[in-house]
Amino acid sequence: MKKIIALVAAMGSTSVMADWQALPEVAPAPADNPTSAEKVELGKALYFDPRISSTGTVSCNSCHNVMAGGDDNRPVSMGVHGKKGGRSAPSVWNSAFYSTQFWDGRANTLEDQAKGPMTNPVEMGMKDHNAVMARLKKIDGYKPMFKKAFGNDKMTIDQAVKAIAAYERTLITPNSAYDKFVKGDKSALSAQQQRGMKLFAEVGCVSCHSGPAFNGQQGVAIGTPVLMKFPTFENNAYVKQYDLKADKGRQNVTGSQADAHMFRVPTLRNVALTAPYFHNGKVRDLSTAVKVMAKTQLNRDLEKQQVADIVAFLNGLTGEFPAQTLPRLPATANTTLLK
Amino acid sequence: MKKIIALVAAMGSTSVMADWQALPEVAPAPADNPTSAEKVELGKALYFDPRISSTGTVSCNSCHNVMAGGDDNRPVSMGVHGKKGGRSAPSVWNSAFYSTQFWDGRANTLEDQAKGPMTNPVEMGMKDHNAVMARLKKIDGYKPMFKKAFGNDKMTIDQAVKAIAAYERTLITPNSAYDKFVKGDKSALSAQQQRGMKLFAEVGCVSCHSGPAFNGQQGVAIGTPVLMKFPTFENNAYVKQYDLKADKGRQNVTGSQADAHMFRVPTLRNVALTAPYFHNGKVRDLSTAVKVMAKTQLNRDLEKQQVADIVAFLNGLTGEFPAQTLPRLPATANTTLLK
Repeated sequence: MKKIIALVAAMGSTSVMADWQALPEVAPAPADNPTSAEKVELGKALYFDPRISSTGTVSCNSCHNVMAGGDDNRPVSMGVHGKKGGRSAPSVWNSAFYSTQFWDGRANTLEDQAKGPMTNPVEMGMKDHNAVMARLKKIDGYKPMFKKAFGNDKMTIDQAVKAIAAYERTLITPNSAYDKFVKGDKSALSAQQQRGMKLFAEVGCVSCHSGPAFNGQQGVAIGTPVLMKFPTFENNAYVKQYDLKADKGRQNVTGSQADAHMFRVPTLRNVALTAPYFHNGKVRDLSTAVKVMAKTQLNRDLEKQQVADIVAFLNGLTGEFPAQTLPRLPATANTTLLK
Repeated sequence: MKKIIALVAAMGSTSVMADWQALPEVAPAPADNPTSAEKVELGKALYFDPRISSTGTVSCNSCHNVMAGGDDNRPVSMGVHGKKGGRSAPSVWNSAFYSTQFWDGRANTLEDQAKGPMTNPVEMGMKDHNAVMARLKKIDGYKPMFKKAFGNDKMTIDQAVKAIAAYERTLITPNSAYDKFVKGDKSALSAQQQRGMKLFAEVGCVSCHSGPAFNGQQGVAIGTPVLMKFPTFENNAYVKQYDLKADKGRQNVTGSQADAHMFRVPTLRNVALTAPYFHNGKVRDLSTAVKVMAKTQLNRDLEKQQVADIVAFLNGLTGEFPAQTLPRLPATANTTLLK
C-alpha cells in the first residue's frame, strides 16, 4: 500500500515553527524524463494545441492559462461543448513542486496528469489516447519535433506527455516579494505583510502550507500524496454555505471511507491570482477563503484585521512570470483534422 | 449610398495580366488610430483575454489563433457554451489588408469588426459593450495600460477596439516563397509552383485574387467592400454538394436582392494553413477548393495536374510569422469576475 502523508500533527496547536524558504528557480525532473530544450519546445506546442480536443477548441492552456495565474478563474472549468468539470482547475504554475497531481492526488506525476484531461469527456473529450496520437501523427510538423526531443519519431502518448511535463517544469515563478524578503531584503514585505506572515505561522496555517511552495510537500517523494481532510471541523456555518461536504475527495479514488473529504494541500504561490478558491471554486474572494480555512481547518475565528494581514502576506507570494514566446503550432497543410 | 466594387470585369476571360506584388511589411493605420507600441501591447492583452466573453472561456484568439494560421481550422467556430457560428472564421493574419471586414463586408474597419464578436450570442456572448467595459474596469492592471495607450483612462469600448485593431495591424506574414520570388530570387518557387503561378493568372483566378494580399483590395478605400457573387456559375454539382446557395451573403446586410450570395474576396495569403475553405467551411481540402472555385467562378474544368500546380503555387504564399511574446493578462487580485 502506498504511503500517504496526512497532515494532522500540528493541527490545533496555536503556534508552529515556520521554516521560511524561497522558491527554487529550477524544478526537479524525474530520471526517466530529463528536461531538454527540445522537449520543452515540443511540450509548449502540445500544451497550446487545441487539436488534442475532440472539437479542436480546448487546449491545456484553455483551463490552465499561463498568460494569467495558470488557471481559468472559473469555479469549475468548461471543456468541449461547454461541458462543466467537477472541480476547480489548479494552477499549472509551480505544479512541478507537487508530490502528486489533481485535487485528490490520483496522478503521481505531471506526465500522468497530462493524460487525464485529453480523454475526459467533459474536458478535451478525445475517445482515447490512440485517437490523440492519430491526430498528432497527421500533423507533419510534429514528427521532426518528436525526433529532436526523443531521438526517434515513434510519437507515442508517453512521449507526448513527457514533453508536456517538461514544459510545465519550466513554469516557475520565483522572486516574489516574500522570496526577496526571505533572501534578506527586509523592505520587500510591508509591515502589514510581515504581521500577516507572523500570523500565518501562529494561527497554524503553516502546519499544512509549509515549505517553499506552501503546500507541505517539500522533500516528499513524487507519488506520495500529501492530503488533508477538508473540512476538518464541521461545526460551523461555512460547511453548508460553501457546500464543503458534497465532494468525497480521495475517497472517490480509493473507495476507502478513511479517505472521505481528503484533498491535496494546494500551493499558495500566486494565490492572489487564482480565485475562486477551494476544490469546488465556491469561495470567490481570498479574504473569505482565509476565514473559512481558519474555521474549518483550525477551528479559529479570525478577526477582520487578522484576515486582512494574512491576505496582504499571501499577496506577497505572487512571483515573477518568465517571459515566453508564443509557440507556432505545426499545420496540416491544405486540409484540416477538425469537423 | 456606399460605393461597392463587384468584381466581374475579367470573369470568363481566359487570360488576365497579373501584376505580381510582394506583401508590404507594414499595414496602413487609419488617421484616427495611429499605431503605437503601447496600443499594440494593450491590444494584444485584450486579444488574448477570455474575460471579455460571458463564460470567460473565449478570447479573440480562440477562433483566430495567431499561433496557427489565424483561424481555428473548424468549418464554423464554437463560441460560449459550445455554440456554433454561421460562417467559417477568417484568418486574422494580414486582415489589415482588407478594405472591409467579415465575409459580407459589414464592418468597415478592424476597429468595427472587433466590436462584433463580443456581443454575438454564439461567439463571446456578452450582453452589450457596457458589460465588456465594466468587466475590464474591474481589472486594475488594464487602467495604466489604457492610460499609456490613449493618454487617459476613460476605458471606452472605442479605445478597446482601437487597441485590438492596432495589434492586428502588426499581424503580417511577409517573406513567403512567392514574395522572395517576386523580389528576384527565382529559385524561391519550384518549377511546379511557377507553372501554378502562370496558370493562376491564365485561368483567371487573379481577376479577383489580385494585389499583394491576393484579395483584389489593393488601393481600395477602407470601407469599400470588394465583393464577388459565389457561386457565379450554378450549372454544376458542387453547388448542391457544398451547399453553396444556403447563405445569402451580403443580402443579409443590405436586404437587397442584388447582393444575394455576394461575399468578400478573401486573401489567399497562408491559404494552405486555413482549411477548411469558403464562407461555410464545407470544403476540407485545398485541391477541392481550387476545383470548385474554377468551376463556380470561372466555369472552368481544371485537369488534375493543373489543380496540383495551382495548389503548389498557393503553398508558396505561406509567409513568415513574426515571433511574439505571450502577453501577461492583468489580474483581479484576490477575486474573480467569472461565475
